[in-house]
Amino acid sequence: MKLDEDERIDDLQCDNLKIIQNKNGFCYGIDSVLLSNYAGEIRPSDTVLDLGTGTGILGLLIYGKKKPLNIIGIELQKDVAEMAKRSVELNNLKDVFKIYNEDIKTIIEKGIIKKNSIDVVVTNPPYKENSTGIKNENKNKLISRHEITASLEDFINISAQALKDKGILYMVHRPERLVDLFYLLRKYKIEPKEIKLVSPMRGKKPNLILIKAIKNGRKFLKIEDLLYVYENIGEYSEEIKKIYNIK
Amino acid sequence: MKLDEDERIDDLQCDNLKIIQNKNGFCYGIDSVLLSNYAGEIRPSDTVLDLGTGTGILGLLIYGKKKPLNIIGIELQKDVAEMAKRSVELNNLKDVFKIYNEDIKTIIEKGIIKKNSIDVVVTNPPYKENSTGIKNENKNKLISRHEITASLEDFINISAQALKDKGILYMVHRPERLVDLFYLLRKYKIEPKEIKLVSPMRGKKPNLILIKAIKNGRKFLKIEDLLYVYENIGEYSEEIKKIYNIK
Repeated sequence: MKLDEDERIDDLQCDNLKIIQNKNGFCYGIDSVLLSNYAGEIRPSDTVLDLGTGTGILGLLIYGKKKPLNIIGIELQKDVAEMAKRSVELNNLKDVFKIYNEDIKTIIEKGIIKKNSIDVVVTNPPYKENSTGIKNENKNKLISRHEITASLEDFINISAQALKDKGILYMVHRPERLVDLFYLLRKYKIEPKEIKLVSPMRGKKPNLILIKAIKNGRKFLKIEDLLYVYENIGEYSEEIKKIYNIK
Repeated sequence: MKLDEDERIDDLQCDNLKIIQNKNGFCYGIDSVLLSNYAGEIRPSDTVLDLGTGTGILGLLIYGKKKPLNIIGIELQKDVAEMAKRSVELNNLKDVFKIYNEDIKTIIEKGIIKKNSIDVVVTNPPYKENSTGIKNENKNKLISRHEITASLEDFINISAQALKDKGILYMVHRPERLVDLFYLLRKYKIEPKEIKLVSPMRGKKPNLILIKAIKNGRKFLKIEDLLYVYENIGEYSEEIKKIYNIK
C-alpha cells in the first residue's frame, strides 16, 4: 500500500481493520467510535449510508461490528475520498464498502443513491455553523468541522430522501445544537427517538450527543443514561472500557 | 375564609404563604416547586404571566421568592379559578396577583393581555397529548393533565405573542415531549436556551424537564446538570433540601 509522506496506518483494534490517516488532517476521534457503537440496530442484510465519510472510519468500524451487506460512503473532498478508498482496499473490502467522491447534496439527483432505498444512515457531520468559531485551520479540517459545503439541514434533508420508511438515522453532534437537530429532524419527518448525552468526565457537562431517529417514526423521545468517558482523571469509565475492548 | 367541604388549606413553607386545594382535585406537586425555583431571572419590576394557573401555586411561590410587581394567572376551569382567587385573598395579594377565568387561547384577542407586554411567562401545561394515556380521571384532573382544551402549541403560541422581545419563558414538561417542545419553541421564535433534566432518584431516568427559552434569543442550548430528587430511598438530595428549605 502506497502512502503519502504525511500519512500513517493505524490499527482500529477491531476485527483486524486498519485505516490510513493524514497526520496533519482530520484524524478520527471518540465521536466516531461512540457513534459506530451506538448504531446498534444494523442487520446483516442492511445497506448503510455514511454521509460525509471522511477517512472512512465510521464505515470501517460498522463493518467490523455489524457486517452489513453494503456500506456506501459519500465524501466531497477528493484527497480525503482517495485516502478512504485506499483504506477500503487495504482491508479488502471493495465489494462491501463503496466510496463516492461526491457532494452529498447531489447524490439523489445524480442517481447515486435511490430515494427510499437505505436501511440505515450514519453521519458525523460538521458540528459548527459556517458563521461561528475560529477558522484558521487547514482546508480539510475546516470542511470537516464547519458547515461550509453542506449545512445540517442538507445532511438531514438528504437522509430523509435516502431512507426507507422506518429506516434509522444515527448521528453524533454537539449538545448546543440540539434544538437545531430536533427542529430539522421533525421538519423532515425523521422523528428523534433516543438521545444519549456524552460527558468527558463524571461531574462535567456533556459535550457530545448521540441521536437515533426513525423516518416516519412515532413521537416519543427516550433519554438514555449519560455516558461518562472518564470516571476520574486517567481512568476510563466501565462503559468506555467495554466499547474500546479495554480489559 | 369559607372553604368547601372537600377543600383544605396548606402552608407553602415559603414567606408565610398558604394555598387552598381540593382534596379530590389536582394538588400541586414537585413540578410547580421546581419550576418556581428554576424561574430565577424575575426582577422586582416584572410582570409575570402564568398560563393555566390552576390553584395559583406557581404564582404564589414566585411571589414568595421574587416579589415581582404583577402576576397574572389565567385559568379556564371556573371552580379552580374561584379557588385560586380565594387563595389570593387569603394571602392579601389582590393588588399583585390577578386571576382571570379565561381560555388562554382568547386572552390576546380579548385584550386581557397585550401583545409584547409580558416580561416572564411561567407555565406548567398539561403533559399528555389528547390522544394518549388513560382518561378515567375526574374532569378537573383530566383538563390539568391532558391537552384537551389547549394544546402545547397553543401555550407556546400565546406565550410568543404575550412576551416582550427577549422576554423569558420558563416551562416544566416531560422528557418524552422534548422534540415537540423544541420544534414548537423554535417555530414560534422563543429560542430554548437552557434545559435541566430532573430524575426521581440517582440512577433513574429523568421524568421531568425544566426549560428556559427567550423570545428572539440567540441559538445556543446549554444543558445543565441533572437534578436528582432523592439521593437514596427516603433521603432527599442536597439540591432538593435547599429548594425545600429542609435543614
